[in-house]
Amino acid sequence: MNPMGLFEELEKALSPERVTNNETILELHSKDESYHTPHLPDVVVFPENTEEVSEIMKLANKYETVVVPFGLGSSLEGNMIPYDQGIMIDFSMMNKILEVKPEDFLVKVQPGVTRTQLDKALKKHGLFFSVDPGADATLGGMAATNASGTTSVKYGIMRDNVRDLEVVLADGTVFHTGSLAAKSSSGYHLNGIFVGSEGTLGCFTELTLKVFGIPEHTMAGRAAFSSVEDAVDAVIGILQAGIPVARVELVDEQSMKQINWFSETTYAEVPTLFLEFHGNEAGLEQDVDFTREIVSDFNCKELSFETDTAARNRLWDARHNAAYAYIHGNPGKRQMVTDVCLPISELAGAIKDAREAIENSGLVGGIVGHVGDGNYHILLMIDVNNPSDIEKANQVNERIVGYALTRGGTCTGEHGVGVGKKKYQEQEHGPALDVMRKIKAALDPAGKLNPGKVVDLD
Amino acid sequence: MNPMGLFEELEKALSPERVTNNETILELHSKDESYHTPHLPDVVVFPENTEEVSEIMKLANKYETVVVPFGLGSSLEGNMIPYDQGIMIDFSMMNKILEVKPEDFLVKVQPGVTRTQLDKALKKHGLFFSVDPGADATLGGMAATNASGTTSVKYGIMRDNVRDLEVVLADGTVFHTGSLAAKSSSGYHLNGIFVGSEGTLGCFTELTLKVFGIPEHTMAGRAAFSSVEDAVDAVIGILQAGIPVARVELVDEQSMKQINWFSETTYAEVPTLFLEFHGNEAGLEQDVDFTREIVSDFNCKELSFETDTAARNRLWDARHNAAYAYIHGNPGKRQMVTDVCLPISELAGAIKDAREAIENSGLVGGIVGHVGDGNYHILLMIDVNNPSDIEKANQVNERIVGYALTRGGTCTGEHGVGVGKKKYQEQEHGPALDVMRKIKAALDPAGKLNPGKVVDLD
Repeated sequence: MNPMGLFEELEKALSPERVTNNETILELHSKDESYHTPHLPDVVVFPENTEEVSEIMKLANKYETVVVPFGLGSSLEGNMIPYDQGIMIDFSMMNKILEVKPEDFLVKVQPGVTRTQLDKALKKHGLFFSVDPGADATLGGMAATNASGTTSVKYGIMRDNVRDLEVVLADGTVFHTGSLAAKSSSGYHLNGIFVGSEGTLGCFTELTLKVFGIPEHTMAGRAAFSSVEDAVDAVIGILQAGIPVARVELVDEQSMKQINWFSETTYAEVPTLFLEFHGNEAGLEQDVDFTREIVSDFNCKELSFETDTAARNRLWDARHNAAYAYIHGNPGKRQMVTDVCLPISELAGAIKDAREAIENSGLVGGIVGHVGDGNYHILLMIDVNNPSDIEKANQVNERIVGYALTRGGTCTGEHGVGVGKKKYQEQEHGPALDVMRKIKAALDPAGKLNPGKVVDLD
Repeated sequence: MNPMGLFEELEKALSPERVTNNETILELHSKDESYHTPHLPDVVVFPENTEEVSEIMKLANKYETVVVPFGLGSSLEGNMIPYDQGIMIDFSMMNKILEVKPEDFLVKVQPGVTRTQLDKALKKHGLFFSVDPGADATLGGMAATNASGTTSVKYGIMRDNVRDLEVVLADGTVFHTGSLAAKSSSGYHLNGIFVGSEGTLGCFTELTLKVFGIPEHTMAGRAAFSSVEDAVDAVIGILQAGIPVARVELVDEQSMKQINWFSETTYAEVPTLFLEFHGNEAGLEQDVDFTREIVSDFNCKELSFETDTAARNRLWDARHNAAYAYIHGNPGKRQMVTDVCLPISELAGAIKDAREAIENSGLVGGIVGHVGDGNYHILLMIDVNNPSDIEKANQVNERIVGYALTRGGTCTGEHGVGVGKKKYQEQEHGPALDVMRKIKAALDPAGKLNPGKVVDLD
């Protein structure tokens, strides 16, 4: 990087107050929410529109400088840590909700809009955005990592809910990946390849997202089991019965304890499913009755449902706070969150093996899972200054990733590759990795977009 | 092409009886179901496994010869017509259902398996494959064109239901686009880009598809309206109410007449919605009651429901036979089927404009539509030996495509680009077409895979 010339040109292209190498600002852009080592960018820029992003890309190109996009820094695999320095594009000033189209179930937003900001705006139209990764991430960031969360079993993941992206390529070209049509067989499906590309193929400057009508009725419940196997088998039973469950989350015994301690709840401290159903009143009642029958076949010890909003929110807050419960319960430690996803038939075995791996490591850790999708996380507490902790955590991760990959699974269900899952890409994708590399080389030949993440050029 | 050396090498790689230039066989592989001009390939090969497909690709590479995959020839835009001759790979001998995994809602098939063959095999597991384009196409072909049809409003299009593809690239490399996991954020999403690539990026040799449990209850009905606008507005109302309709098809007045004549039915000859709901009994009843309220708000003149299987099948047969009804009613003519898709808020206007375009052309034509997705077809009858008919049909197509593209739509919702929609790619995709071209060049640098379709190298 030639910081002098580039810095001045960036100031000219944007405005001086939106280009900075202030140490505090650089620091804020050096890390995400993971245990991965922070690293400072050279400069942080705050564009206000697509044209400015295109200008930044052209200048980066001219000065052969790295570019990394930044949403809110809530990623979990070091996805946006700028290990090769360069320009970090912070999208917080591109945070407008541009258009809500209720008849088409679409909303157009800038990448810096956050999930809760969007939901607030949609509520008055009777609509909601379904993807809920827990954190109040930006939509741009969620598209970049192909986020999902608790509701994807019914409503789909980020990739399913992105109708169109405006993208700026490494050379400054601006284009759209899709259209507003609900489906298309026209040309190659660029939407799919850009969602989940983690800033390695281009930067998103506008997103058109699919939204849903707020369901007429919602019921949430908690089912307590004697074993993880029973809980997972009950979920398979619910899915096979065709019950359109909207959320089904597994929380293991250890994590229920941690939740009770943190949220001051008194839930049974056994493997538990948190469930939610959306639909019309009569249909929900029948779904719930059927669910009751199924879970009792799998030795459910307790099943309770909540219909009023406050009780439902309490329940889901407890579930969503699981990660924070561990963090607060282990001061001074950071959290490594694993993220494998398997065919659901392999999930019970995987979780049993994961529990064994945690016990063997001697680390504190609990398991929570988006069990309807076969995706589970270990919340593993580590002292990042203790090499032995890092080593043990890596061993746990390596073991569970290996278990998943030999059974048709993936090393990351929703957090993305970043730097943390880079080493598993060859094993997971085999010759497909070379296809990905060719696509990367075709679209970012100089390898300047978020280098070191997802795939390397060679 | 060097037919002598290549032909002999193909015979050696497969076996002599599975490599042919028999005129009748070439003829059978020269056309699809569209009005597009047929063209013979040089040779047709019938591989039995992935290794043989890889060998064919390597030989094609060596002899610098074109390769085009062939399913059943049911495409509608000349998608597999071999205008540059070369080798046609017929996948009819790769037609095995390899594995059904009911717990994971997955099935693994070879590309030559047809839709009805698959559904028969799934039925005994209580499962069904949701994508229903009408024709009994092969799954390989359906993935190649990203087919959809009547059920995609609830269950998604082909791209949503392909979990993994085994692909053979132009150089013979074999790789997998995905995994068996329900979701993944690992690497670039190759599934999405290969589904809908129409044989221009590689050949599919194995598909892992998502399947669904056969719904507990199904209700189908017919709603008759005074105008297309009312019918479309009623659909928007149904969707906004969050009623999870499984199918919602529009048939215009002219097509209802043609259906009555062909299927010997006595349905009201007015704009009609064919509807289907899947779910539990109580939920369905409430959905139907709610639907009744909504359609009555939009001047529905008649609403009738069928629950028994025979009556339901009669109803859907009538709808599915709309295209054949026109063909039988217009002997000596062929059918041009248009395929635009728009945001649903633009659909009523588009259909009104389309009806005007048909009237102006003087051609016989009816409109049917997958209205829940904003996708409609004009079934336009033309004499392919009469240049004036072709000219008029092209004018109609051009007008409705233009209408769709200026309103955020696409020139093809489900039939693919083939040769028929090639001319609209620049207008629809703008600078994105260059991104597609770069991907094509990266994966098929010599441009030998189904050339002339989707995008050109330069």
